[in-house]
Amino acid sequence: MTDPTDLTQAAEIMAATRACVDPELRRAIETLPGSMRRVALYHFGWEHADGTPAAGHAGKAIRPALVLAAVRALGGDTACAVRAAAAVELTHNFTLLHDDVMDRDTTRRHRPTAWTVFGDADAILAGDALQALAQRLLAEDPHPAAPAAAARLAACVLELCAGQHADCALEHRGPDEVTLAECLTTAEAKTGALLGCACALGALYAGAGREVTEALDGFGRQAGLAFQLIDDVIGIWGDPRRTGKTAGADLAARKKSLPVVAALTSGTAAAAELARLYGYSGTPGEMTRAEVERTARAVEGAGGRDWAQLHAADRMSRAVCELAGAVPDPEAAGGLLALAEFVTRRTH
Amino acid sequence: MTDPTDLTQAAEIMAATRACVDPELRRAIETLPGSMRRVALYHFGWEHADGTPAAGHAGKAIRPALVLAAVRALGGDTACAVRAAAAVELTHNFTLLHDDVMDRDTTRRHRPTAWTVFGDADAILAGDALQALAQRLLAEDPHPAAPAAAARLAACVLELCAGQHADCALEHRGPDEVTLAECLTTAEAKTGALLGCACALGALYAGAGREVTEALDGFGRQAGLAFQLIDDVIGIWGDPRRTGKTAGADLAARKKSLPVVAALTSGTAAAAELARLYGYSGTPGEMTRAEVERTARAVEGAGGRDWAQLHAADRMSRAVCELAGAVPDPEAAGGLLALAEFVTRRTH
Repeated sequence: MTDPTDLTQAAEIMAATRACVDPELRRAIETLPGSMRRVALYHFGWEHADGTPAAGHAGKAIRPALVLAAVRALGGDTACAVRAAAAVELTHNFTLLHDDVMDRDTTRRHRPTAWTVFGDADAILAGDALQALAQRLLAEDPHPAAPAAAARLAACVLELCAGQHADCALEHRGPDEVTLAECLTTAEAKTGALLGCACALGALYAGAGREVTEALDGFGRQAGLAFQLIDDVIGIWGDPRRTGKTAGADLAARKKSLPVVAALTSGTAAAAELARLYGYSGTPGEMTRAEVERTARAVEGAGGRDWAQLHAADRMSRAVCELAGAVPDPEAAGGLLALAEFVTRRTH
Repeated sequence: MTDPTDLTQAAEIMAATRACVDPELRRAIETLPGSMRRVALYHFGWEHADGTPAAGHAGKAIRPALVLAAVRALGGDTACAVRAAAAVELTHNFTLLHDDVMDRDTTRRHRPTAWTVFGDADAILAGDALQALAQRLLAEDPHPAAPAAAARLAACVLELCAGQHADCALEHRGPDEVTLAECLTTAEAKTGALLGCACALGALYAGAGREVTEALDGFGRQAGLAFQLIDDVIGIWGDPRRTGKTAGADLAARKKSLPVVAALTSGTAAAAELARLYGYSGTPGEMTRAEVERTARAVEGAGGRDWAQLHAADRMSRAVCELAGAVPDPEAAGGLLALAEFVTRRTH
């Protein structure tokens, strides 16, 4: 599992995914009414705010890559599932646009978030439009799996909404009022659900039955939780030049990410220090640079970083178990395993 | 066309629609995750803000009534289209939830809007969830028309978003910078599109071909524009005890509704007075009660009220023309005609 070729393979899969899904995505986005098209093209990194073409930084394509890898793992024809892969990516980006509005996040993929450029209303509308576009792609898809895929994607959106709601609610509570269990449940709904759905859609497009589809969903969910854990680690200790986010922005905003909550609930001396840094009365200001660094050390000292990495590895092994049941041939499962491996080993 | 029995017939159709669509709607909403369910039940008027049961004021059900009336007009089985009718109503309410957030509207159906009670984030999430729920209903519907209906509904959402964007943009321009033509285009996208889509879905569920489906869409669009014109008239001169909105709230907020823009562009002396009342420099405050009354008189004096009523009648006759082409039998078309008649004759 430490073979560096795994990461190369994942990078290749994601590049190949971009190459076949991006044209479908762009074609779909070009059909949007003007205002939504402009916001979407900016959000995907294909245009600057003034509408001039941009090089593109449209994320890692992990979700569409999972759709296609799941199709391949089950012996299906990936060409038929490109539209479904694009629908999953549109859905993901609809939630990003709305989450950024709700969370007042100002930076994504190295650039100002859409609402900071176009205002709340246009960012909300662009998100609404991307959700509709995703469903339109599936509704117009003649593949026999399309209706089941559409129903599953819609159900997944409900889970994503529940996850975002729980996440917002957690942020409004004090640092001593959250448990690790509820943070994990929230992360599963917010991140695991869509990675699971991506794999399940791939299974449906490969003609899989209920049991295999659910196993693929379980694989994606567990890998998704590993993904979120590593994302949180990178959010604290990652290199901002590579992550596209401000260093320690999650800490400065006192976000209750998984490593932080693990640290807070560790019962250590560092946990008490962290609770002091995270606790506030009256108007909460952003932390200073020095406070952010002290906080990062406290999270690490309280074991939050180690816990997140160990727990990510645990989730990965659960993911591998789910997958082994449905796809016993390691060769066939290779693409999915490489992608899952990637999400727990990446550094940005 | 002045026969008051038309209004009775429309009221009966809408009551019958509520009786068969409401259970489907509630069943769908009950499947939502807790937080979204709570906001949706409040928004539909089935619960108070504290979660206790409420009598319900879930709007006029004009859109689901159009779905079912279109099915009946074309000889289809309305029982099979209840789910589609519920999907249209969910879609409508998703846009209301989001529009209220964007427009900062504080009152709807006699009650505080959802965002004022639950906050922006939960109102946005509830809207997202209702859009997903609408699509899930259609994706899970075994009726052969369901995929085409889902695609059409998703395309309609894109038009609704474009209409809302144009509406927001109009509100940010000065009173001398908007034309009546662009306001009508906006109203068609914002209101006409979904009424047209409702009728088109009914046609699809009755097994109609492309031409009849488009004629039904055209009927709904024209009736929808008439609906919006009358809605704007009621928004200025309606009885707040019946409309559920503050008297003259649209004027107080200097909204560029259709009668106002018709008045502004009339070239009359009253138009100049109105432009002065609507124009502002620096920070725009809400109008006083006396200013609202003066503004309403100026809109009326400049012919805005008469224009809106005449133009609504013109749209209604276009609607009737569209319908006559597709459904020549007046008996069969009766329900649709009664509903269209209702929207141009109602007073609240």
